[in-house]
Amino acid sequence: MSQLRKDPITREWVCISTDRAKRPSDFRHKEEAALVRTSDHSVCPFCPGNESASAESILVYSSDGGEWSLRVVPNKFPALDGNAARTVTRHGIYQSMPGAGAHEVVIETREHGKSLGHLEQSQVERVLNAYKERYLALEKDPQIKYILIFRNHGKVAGASINHAHSQIIGSPMVPQQALVKIKGIELYEDYFGICVYCDILEEELRCGERVVAQNASFVAFAPFASRHPYEMWILPRKREAHFARIGSEETRDLAMILKDALLRLDRCLGNPPYNYMILTTSLSEQFHWHLEIIPRLTIAAGFELGTGIYINVVAPEQAAADLRDVSP
Amino acid sequence: MSQLRKDPITREWVCISTDRAKRPSDFRHKEEAALVRTSDHSVCPFCPGNESASAESILVYSSDGGEWSLRVVPNKFPALDGNAARTVTRHGIYQSMPGAGAHEVVIETREHGKSLGHLEQSQVERVLNAYKERYLALEKDPQIKYILIFRNHGKVAGASINHAHSQIIGSPMVPQQALVKIKGIELYEDYFGICVYCDILEEELRCGERVVAQNASFVAFAPFASRHPYEMWILPRKREAHFARIGSEETRDLAMILKDALLRLDRCLGNPPYNYMILTTSLSEQFHWHLEIIPRLTIAAGFELGTGIYINVVAPEQAAADLRDVSP
Repeated sequence: MSQLRKDPITREWVCISTDRAKRPSDFRHKEEAALVRTSDHSVCPFCPGNESASAESILVYSSDGGEWSLRVVPNKFPALDGNAARTVTRHGIYQSMPGAGAHEVVIETREHGKSLGHLEQSQVERVLNAYKERYLALEKDPQIKYILIFRNHGKVAGASINHAHSQIIGSPMVPQQALVKIKGIELYEDYFGICVYCDILEEELRCGERVVAQNASFVAFAPFASRHPYEMWILPRKREAHFARIGSEETRDLAMILKDALLRLDRCLGNPPYNYMILTTSLSEQFHWHLEIIPRLTIAAGFELGTGIYINVVAPEQAAADLRDVSP
Repeated sequence: MSQLRKDPITREWVCISTDRAKRPSDFRHKEEAALVRTSDHSVCPFCPGNESASAESILVYSSDGGEWSLRVVPNKFPALDGNAARTVTRHGIYQSMPGAGAHEVVIETREHGKSLGHLEQSQVERVLNAYKERYLALEKDPQIKYILIFRNHGKVAGASINHAHSQIIGSPMVPQQALVKIKGIELYEDYFGICVYCDILEEELRCGERVVAQNASFVAFAPFASRHPYEMWILPRKREAHFARIGSEETRDLAMILKDALLRLDRCLGNPPYNYMILTTSLSEQFHWHLEIIPRLTIAAGFELGTGIYINVVAPEQAAADLRDVSP
């Protein structure tokens, strides 16, 4: 019989159903799973020499030699962009709002075909510094109410360009999903007098079986109610609502554990498609920012769409053991 | 600039972003999109002659000749099944529950490779009657608190067997997603004194531009805040919380409009992968059951996972026009 587990933050259940037992090798070499490799670098809009394919850079980091090592550019097909008054238009009973905001692309390296986990530690730190710098800039824009930093790796995870990049979207409204999480955090603290993420951290370190890696500032683990096989969260040991308040020492530690986690995924599952998202907010000081890595190995089908309850075919304890077993 | 639209039920926003304008032909012949066709019927567990591949049938409909025309069998790899006390187990700070419940498969036809939209109207009615009969039976099980009837068509939509089938899952707990919708319905009725789905129906019929098809009992339309390209809802004209209270005349009308909607999708997009779900509940008499069809043409990437806000590249008005333009 499968097991239902309750997510303590969203209060949603997850179905851990391992009857069709899956080993890491079952997820390898799936069609479309791996990154589409473009051999012809001349057509890659993110490669050196093709800078004119993007609008003017918003931010450029250069190495000593003067060449850029990281660029932030506007997304060519932005989901949200530009300025517009926050005007609600009525369409009969419905409401709409202009899709104002920002949609930026962080080109993480000059090197085509090198994935984030395989970059030097210093380059991963540079990526995190760019996240922070752009977050702080976008936060100042009064029309932006919510910022998501995320990464799509592989076609199945929604990437259309394979040159290593992340994205930042600044949105004029707060997602309901964020409000549900904030409410969950507040409810938990009301009941138990402790931050739910801090409590999770303590529990994970005490029990240990879902921990994948840790260092002075962060713990990477497979969450108890993982919705996806090999899902991992990277949680700061110190509670802090805002990702962008991260210091230089923590940035170094985050780069280290992120690189470690991504390499473990790569070794364990053979360059799987994945998304990661930095969940942070300035809406509630009670928040505890963190990074969620979601490998895209199975498909959310009718049951997931119709209920929001995920069926996960790999127990988080097994996933953590598999990820610990490979050495990056 | 894209447009943000608010779903009046979930209160979540959707981003309608048509800058990368898509025509139906852009979605055709995608890798993995269509149904995987098994030419060797001898290995299909749902084909006549291979009945022993499944456990004993739960329900069988036979045609006059005595051969079965539809069977309901237990899912061989159930997400939820069996009986167990509703016992919450503590794992440190976490909770789990046994995955008790039911997971059934409706084998919709004897004919391998014939999809639901291409079945005779009478056979589609038979499928709906099976849904109703099994819903009513599962509803009597005191451990089952929520029932979802759904269909996965095509590999990208999560189907692993291509012989036409739907699934029914009876779950021991109510999804948070269902509670959010019920709350949305109650809030709307509190404010406006009318059922939100009835109000939507009136608005859609008044405005007309998102309506795809209609008959005496149902209206099929592209919802204003569609999260997915070519998403369609089939809504009963008469408010009724429980799908399983459907009468024979309504069943005929539902079969007609469902077949029509699926054939339009097929003609418009070339046998696209899709899920459909029947959303119904016995938790609130204020509910208004309906069927949602979700074509799986784009990928939910980091932004959707991180915010719950979908980016839809086809305006619902355009989707409805495209679907009206093809004649089934």
